[in-house]
Amino acid sequence: MTDLEISLSVPPKPIRDIAAKLNIPEDLLEYYGTNKAKLPLSLIDPKKISQGKLVLVTAITPTPAGEGKTTVSIGLGDGLNHIGKKAMTVIREPSLGPVFGIKGGAAGGGRSQVIPMVDINLHFTGDFSAVEKANNLLAALIDNNIQAKQGNLGIDPRTVLWKRCMDMNDRALRNIISGLGGKAGGVPREAGFNITAASEIMAILCLSQDIEDLQQRCGQIYIGDTFEGKPVYARDLKAEGAMAVLLKDAIKPNLVQTLEGNPAIIHGGPFANIAQGTNTVLGTKMGLSLADYVVTEAGFGADLGAEKFLNIKCRAAGLSPSAIVLVATIRALKYHGGKPLNELTLEDTAALKAGLPNLERHLSSLKSFGLPVVVAINNFDRDTEAEKRLLIEHCEALGVPVAISNGWAEGGKGCEALARKVAEAAEGCTATFTPTYALEDSPRQKMEKICRTIYGAENVILSNVASRQLRRFEDLGYGNLPVCMAKTQKSLSDDEKKLGRPENFDIHIRELEIATGAGFIIPIAGNILRMPGLPSSPASERISIDREGTISGLF
Amino acid sequence: MTDLEISLSVPPKPIRDIAAKLNIPEDLLEYYGTNKAKLPLSLIDPKKISQGKLVLVTAITPTPAGEGKTTVSIGLGDGLNHIGKKAMTVIREPSLGPVFGIKGGAAGGGRSQVIPMVDINLHFTGDFSAVEKANNLLAALIDNNIQAKQGNLGIDPRTVLWKRCMDMNDRALRNIISGLGGKAGGVPREAGFNITAASEIMAILCLSQDIEDLQQRCGQIYIGDTFEGKPVYARDLKAEGAMAVLLKDAIKPNLVQTLEGNPAIIHGGPFANIAQGTNTVLGTKMGLSLADYVVTEAGFGADLGAEKFLNIKCRAAGLSPSAIVLVATIRALKYHGGKPLNELTLEDTAALKAGLPNLERHLSSLKSFGLPVVVAINNFDRDTEAEKRLLIEHCEALGVPVAISNGWAEGGKGCEALARKVAEAAEGCTATFTPTYALEDSPRQKMEKICRTIYGAENVILSNVASRQLRRFEDLGYGNLPVCMAKTQKSLSDDEKKLGRPENFDIHIRELEIATGAGFIIPIAGNILRMPGLPSSPASERISIDREGTISGLF
Repeated sequence: MTDLEISLSVPPKPIRDIAAKLNIPEDLLEYYGTNKAKLPLSLIDPKKISQGKLVLVTAITPTPAGEGKTTVSIGLGDGLNHIGKKAMTVIREPSLGPVFGIKGGAAGGGRSQVIPMVDINLHFTGDFSAVEKANNLLAALIDNNIQAKQGNLGIDPRTVLWKRCMDMNDRALRNIISGLGGKAGGVPREAGFNITAASEIMAILCLSQDIEDLQQRCGQIYIGDTFEGKPVYARDLKAEGAMAVLLKDAIKPNLVQTLEGNPAIIHGGPFANIAQGTNTVLGTKMGLSLADYVVTEAGFGADLGAEKFLNIKCRAAGLSPSAIVLVATIRALKYHGGKPLNELTLEDTAALKAGLPNLERHLSSLKSFGLPVVVAINNFDRDTEAEKRLLIEHCEALGVPVAISNGWAEGGKGCEALARKVAEAAEGCTATFTPTYALEDSPRQKMEKICRTIYGAENVILSNVASRQLRRFEDLGYGNLPVCMAKTQKSLSDDEKKLGRPENFDIHIRELEIATGAGFIIPIAGNILRMPGLPSSPASERISIDREGTISGLF
Repeated sequence: MTDLEISLSVPPKPIRDIAAKLNIPEDLLEYYGTNKAKLPLSLIDPKKISQGKLVLVTAITPTPAGEGKTTVSIGLGDGLNHIGKKAMTVIREPSLGPVFGIKGGAAGGGRSQVIPMVDINLHFTGDFSAVEKANNLLAALIDNNIQAKQGNLGIDPRTVLWKRCMDMNDRALRNIISGLGGKAGGVPREAGFNITAASEIMAILCLSQDIEDLQQRCGQIYIGDTFEGKPVYARDLKAEGAMAVLLKDAIKPNLVQTLEGNPAIIHGGPFANIAQGTNTVLGTKMGLSLADYVVTEAGFGADLGAEKFLNIKCRAAGLSPSAIVLVATIRALKYHGGKPLNELTLEDTAALKAGLPNLERHLSSLKSFGLPVVVAINNFDRDTEAEKRLLIEHCEALGVPVAISNGWAEGGKGCEALARKVAEAAEGCTATFTPTYALEDSPRQKMEKICRTIYGAENVILSNVASRQLRRFEDLGYGNLPVCMAKTQKSLSDDEKKLGRPENFDIHIRELEIATGAGFIIPIAGNILRMPGLPSSPASERISIDREGTISGLF
């Protein structure tokens, strides 16, 4: 059975029943159909948040197919409910781009899915569209001001940093020239589109504490310079009010359910390469206000996901997890041990052993945060007993709790052992996490601390361009912002070919970007695409719908 | 009080109560919040449709501010309910572009509004976004195929007709070069964006009979030619299935309410200059299935709105109105009589008299359809008794029923007299409308018949470009499609400076476009913008939201 077939085989409960489990009065629900609802921010309860247990699911360095963090997160949420905890999974919304490209949906897999899966993977409750509109309104206002005879701010079109966005894999929009067609068509300039998940507005939505904070952050966005070299902000265009109005519903967390009828929140979806890669602060806080346990995830491996989750999101929101789950797969470890991609289903304990240093490196990085870590082995059909035994014994030898996660095949029941170990770790945790750097550190120090403590690198080397940009950002007064590293997810280093546990390497920062509304500096190591392309044979070619509304070919 | 203040002063009834009035079982409602719901197509009842009375609201040639068709439509719907009829208003969804530009919202005005007005004017139920995504997926697939090594169809980038779209006034996107940035960024070509309301997908959504028909229409879209000059259709890219899946919810009509708690459907929003300018066929059919009277409108003056409504939409859908309401305002008639825009609030019976031929021309055009016409004088505060008397007496002398429409100030009660006259006309109507042309006429004959019968023109003159395009479209087998005229709304002629009742003029067709999915040829007279721009001081500058979610400055 495909994920879609499994998902459609379970009739969803009315969302009001799911809300009732959480003691949410029905009149506070904002329905989107019968199986989705937005929750008002008034349900957020600071006292409950401080008592709740937040569990972060992260992963070793992934293979191109990913290691199933979302599936483990949903399975673990169900598993915690299965052992009698009041738990909720809180994760990101999928982007439409991958749905029509290669990867497919992002609502979990097998028996560990959130539903209604088709809706979640398509327009859902319109949050991505709202982000797009707010982003593109600002872009239209910028070009309109450049064109305007009255109220012209003197923006130099060559300096405009702000890009439009679209939730689509559309490489042809990456670099464009806009404003053609003569005087009435605006002022020609180089421009471009990001995919919506890579936009600063998405990052802002996910870091905002409330609508007022969001409006203020929108105003703070740095969009470019005047011909005199003075920085121009969105507030100079009086854009922030209309942008916030466009996001007034998007800011409210979305309640759905897992296949097992447990509540889940899906809210916000920033990419993990260029942004913080995790759901909204408000979604996490809502989860902690309504349940005792919140299981959440952060994109890509722990070097990107966990680091940003803690140093950016948790620091800004005043949150601290009670446990971290590090997802490992036998297949990925064999890959790091040198096994080629097309042979990962074959047993190979030697390759597995050779790949273990990747796991060890992530474990020691995570240790720096001072939080308990549990290893979850995300089970695949073709994993052999010998391989599993080897991995379990290795973790035990390191003194790290470990459990097989079998959520894909069995749902919450398959995650029972994992849930027990996670609950034990979380209940024993009294610490709050130790950040990798202080906000008072210089941006260069911040980068160095991340690269050394988390990646195991020697030095950080900034290009001339990056050094110049850094001086400019510091001159503008942004030296105290956290840094949001943009690096390949395929290696702990900045070279995607260096698998396993790279050693004796430097991190090369090609250039910097800044997101003054979201509140971080983005050091870019290597080429990071903010607008993906479609493959030769896009997934969209296989999708259709019949008169009864039955969809085929989607996932 | 502003429209927003009036709208917020009336607490909306739960949409389930509105649905209950229509005997819709609650479990068939797909809620979007508590005040909006989508209706399943299964509620459409062909028998009820044939018994229902459809009333079209159209207008004389408008001033730049518009003559209040939407306000009259909503007021008349409430008025019909007020006199004991089971009536519903069915209208278009507003575009976001004007909301942040000059015009503001489009949900009626004063006491004749549909609510929740803020939501209706912003993202509403996501229909516009879905149209955008389906449109832009096709664009991404086209550029992806041009770039593809495998499965390349040989599309000549210079011939691509398909544009991307965005629901925003953003002139800088009108003409762009896409695909820059080297090999990985695609193949550079001239491209551009339409505003979403001007996209063919919006036209398709509004003409589709069901999701299967929509899917097929999407496949029929003509997107450009191969290097060998062979036409390429969306189906050649296997795009139609995914496009239809993206539109699976957008195809369902949206139920809301008027300020007086009467049901209203708002569904689809194609522009009236470049497309058919009226709500979905399915919205109209849904209305007729649920109520005895459906009041609907078509954009701009009767020359554009009513003509296309009847010859394109009604013909395709097998519908025929029982009455046509022609909205006239004293101010617009004075404008046509030569009074300058800034003096329209001053009494001037001479100017009014001089403007009457515009009304007469529209009345005689409408007569050609063989349906009863009622003139509605949309009342403005500054209209004087002498002016109103003159206009009423003139209509009576022409033998046309006439009534003052006072919906703006008084809601349904203010439209009681109009409602009675409309009901009388509709109940006396047994005719179905006479189309202006037969589908078997050649495209040139169709244009001639419209221009002569409806505009009062002498001849249609095609440019060389237009003639060549017409031959091409006829060669491709599209000669039997209806024509969807694109012409200024400011004059019966193609010269916006010719007010009143122009005579002895020709219509000049500059070029043609074709919408093979929607199913019409678009003769373009003059410059028609498919992507508007923002003014120097956009309305967005005055919009903000506070911590409690209170919005100010919107409308």
